[in-house]
Amino acid sequence: MQRIYFDNSATTRPDPRVLEAMRPYLEQWYGNASSIHIFGRESFNALEEARNRTSKAIGAKTREVVFTSGGTESDNLAIQGAAFANLSKGNHIITSSIEHHAVLNTCHFLEGQGFRVTYLPVDPDGVVDPESLKTAITKGTILVSVMTANNEIGTIQDVRELGAIAHEGGALFHTDAVQSIGKVPIDVERDNIDLLAISAHKFHGPKGVGALYVRKGVNLRPLVYGGGQERGLRSSTENVPGIVGLGKAIEICMQEMDESVPRMTSIRDRVIQGTLSRVEGCYLNGHRQRRLCNNAHFRFDYVEGEALVLSLDLKGIASSTGSACSSRDSDTSHVLKALGIRNEHARGSLRISLSRMNTTEEAERYLEAITEVVAMLRSISPVAMLSKSPTGG
Amino acid sequence: MQRIYFDNSATTRPDPRVLEAMRPYLEQWYGNASSIHIFGRESFNALEEARNRTSKAIGAKTREVVFTSGGTESDNLAIQGAAFANLSKGNHIITSSIEHHAVLNTCHFLEGQGFRVTYLPVDPDGVVDPESLKTAITKGTILVSVMTANNEIGTIQDVRELGAIAHEGGALFHTDAVQSIGKVPIDVERDNIDLLAISAHKFHGPKGVGALYVRKGVNLRPLVYGGGQERGLRSSTENVPGIVGLGKAIEICMQEMDESVPRMTSIRDRVIQGTLSRVEGCYLNGHRQRRLCNNAHFRFDYVEGEALVLSLDLKGIASSTGSACSSRDSDTSHVLKALGIRNEHARGSLRISLSRMNTTEEAERYLEAITEVVAMLRSISPVAMLSKSPTGG
Repeated sequence: MQRIYFDNSATTRPDPRVLEAMRPYLEQWYGNASSIHIFGRESFNALEEARNRTSKAIGAKTREVVFTSGGTESDNLAIQGAAFANLSKGNHIITSSIEHHAVLNTCHFLEGQGFRVTYLPVDPDGVVDPESLKTAITKGTILVSVMTANNEIGTIQDVRELGAIAHEGGALFHTDAVQSIGKVPIDVERDNIDLLAISAHKFHGPKGVGALYVRKGVNLRPLVYGGGQERGLRSSTENVPGIVGLGKAIEICMQEMDESVPRMTSIRDRVIQGTLSRVEGCYLNGHRQRRLCNNAHFRFDYVEGEALVLSLDLKGIASSTGSACSSRDSDTSHVLKALGIRNEHARGSLRISLSRMNTTEEAERYLEAITEVVAMLRSISPVAMLSKSPTGG
Repeated sequence: MQRIYFDNSATTRPDPRVLEAMRPYLEQWYGNASSIHIFGRESFNALEEARNRTSKAIGAKTREVVFTSGGTESDNLAIQGAAFANLSKGNHIITSSIEHHAVLNTCHFLEGQGFRVTYLPVDPDGVVDPESLKTAITKGTILVSVMTANNEIGTIQDVRELGAIAHEGGALFHTDAVQSIGKVPIDVERDNIDLLAISAHKFHGPKGVGALYVRKGVNLRPLVYGGGQERGLRSSTENVPGIVGLGKAIEICMQEMDESVPRMTSIRDRVIQGTLSRVEGCYLNGHRQRRLCNNAHFRFDYVEGEALVLSLDLKGIASSTGSACSSRDSDTSHVLKALGIRNEHARGSLRISLSRMNTTEEAERYLEAITEVVAMLRSISPVAMLSKSPTGG
């Protein structure tokens, strides 16, 4: 069975070209980038080339890129870092109610440290209204953090407008762009971004490596202390092979976006239209147009999302109910709650998330599978049977 | 030219068996370990096998191992984590004056946060006197942190005794064991350790991954917040290939220590004896016996350490002056200062650090090279010439 991997918002398959680029730094030039001998110098040069590639991809200057261990650390460094470094200016932070847990739980932690956090609501499609940010912003607001695109429902925010409002209010603007690299064009200058978090494994790079864009002049308090690497913002022996992988992966994304985004969009639309037309009692979550080119997120009446995912898995299709981070707990997604979706409806969720490696043929195989799987699950669901019986509610 | 890599305390060459173990999780089973489909389950199983291997190597229970991005993060999580979680018990921390910067700079940060830190002195060989810990410990001491073995001079501490004293005083005991895995036998139970930091790239594993042993019942405040991975202590999508690499690397270390430690010791002793006997005005730093099996650290009269390292590099031998983390700044090593070595003597430092991959033949090639290099450098050194002239000081 040729497996279909449709869970690319959870993580992606490393591109073979990325692994090939990493190989010399695993096998031959394994030096510590701080060492002054040739093993160290080769590592250092590779590190700086990756920094250059990464900065180019987002319109930043080379020195404005700090490498981290991933999206969660980048979000934490941005938010904790900016909060503690700007305490003299104020203690108010604004974010949205549908952020990733790396942002939300960091904000919860900061609330315990004396910060005040406003969680902006979203409309039923998951859009943050820029007017609500204007209303929330005060003199004491030091940081606004709104994600570029949501990891569960794929809704894209108007980051440029939100960033402009933050700046007018004298606050820094951070965006979690973990889901957006290779899918949404980003330019930190044009988009009014001061801090931007990315994660390599979401765009065919390796796990365990990410980056934070830090605009020149923005002060952050580090999360960790040590040898002073990454301009003192992120001490630790640099993960050179991982960073090289990130640099290569982001470069490939940029080179191929013109071709890959329309192709992903077309497969996504086939998945959305096909699912909605073939399966009764199925609805799309998230905004229909302002949507990641690789995201389709549905809810199904009378089916449990976890049963859907496991049944599709048996047919060789990897998908998810929503965020991978929370798939091992059974709480209703905070994102779906924020859209106003009731618990019993949120339970029947399925996220199909594509990558540039997916094909139209895979979408067709999925459409056959989802039709069968939903029918099968409903045939054994007491609730579904009840709803069809003449006496059912 | 067959290069000789003698800078294994900075970082090591990943073992080909480690890279082979990582490969399936880069190429085939690239799932997010939190996903419930087969890609996720394979990742999760690999993660837990690596946790099991890691815990076995240090005598811990599987659940007591938390994976991190490396030694610096592990030290920070241990020290910041224990400090902030135990504020109600006290605010006093004890460490040594020769710790790695990941420990020392974390302590400096905590001093700014209202903690009180005692830096224990060391004797001229770099040994912490357990009696000095007994004297320093008070009712308000919450944490004692002393490294298992020093990264520059290789001196091994009596961790078991220090841990026992910490426990008698009601404090937690943390040890930075980054340099010790595969070289010093460690058992967290026998050695009275509550927190222990390791880093994969120091023992032929990949860069960007480490672990922290956290004794059951020890509370830590996390450094980062997010999806709640690693029992909430270290949120982030798990770096499965890196963690698999760490697990494989530590398992190999344990299997081969009986053979590799005596062999490294013998090569080290040849390096030490050969250097001291062939080169005049050369001294060994660190304790002669209580010393890492892979460490030789010298100081040379009338030679700059950096010139030594670069000259050896030209002859195909990679070495260092001391810690890689500080090799790009020119301050005198805090470790050598703590030994009472004067600045002008500390400047002529050379560290040769071996791994199980080095050979006796490499040691012989080094001995020829160091003799030539020191003679050459002294022949062009005004200070050396002055010292030899009849009127010289």
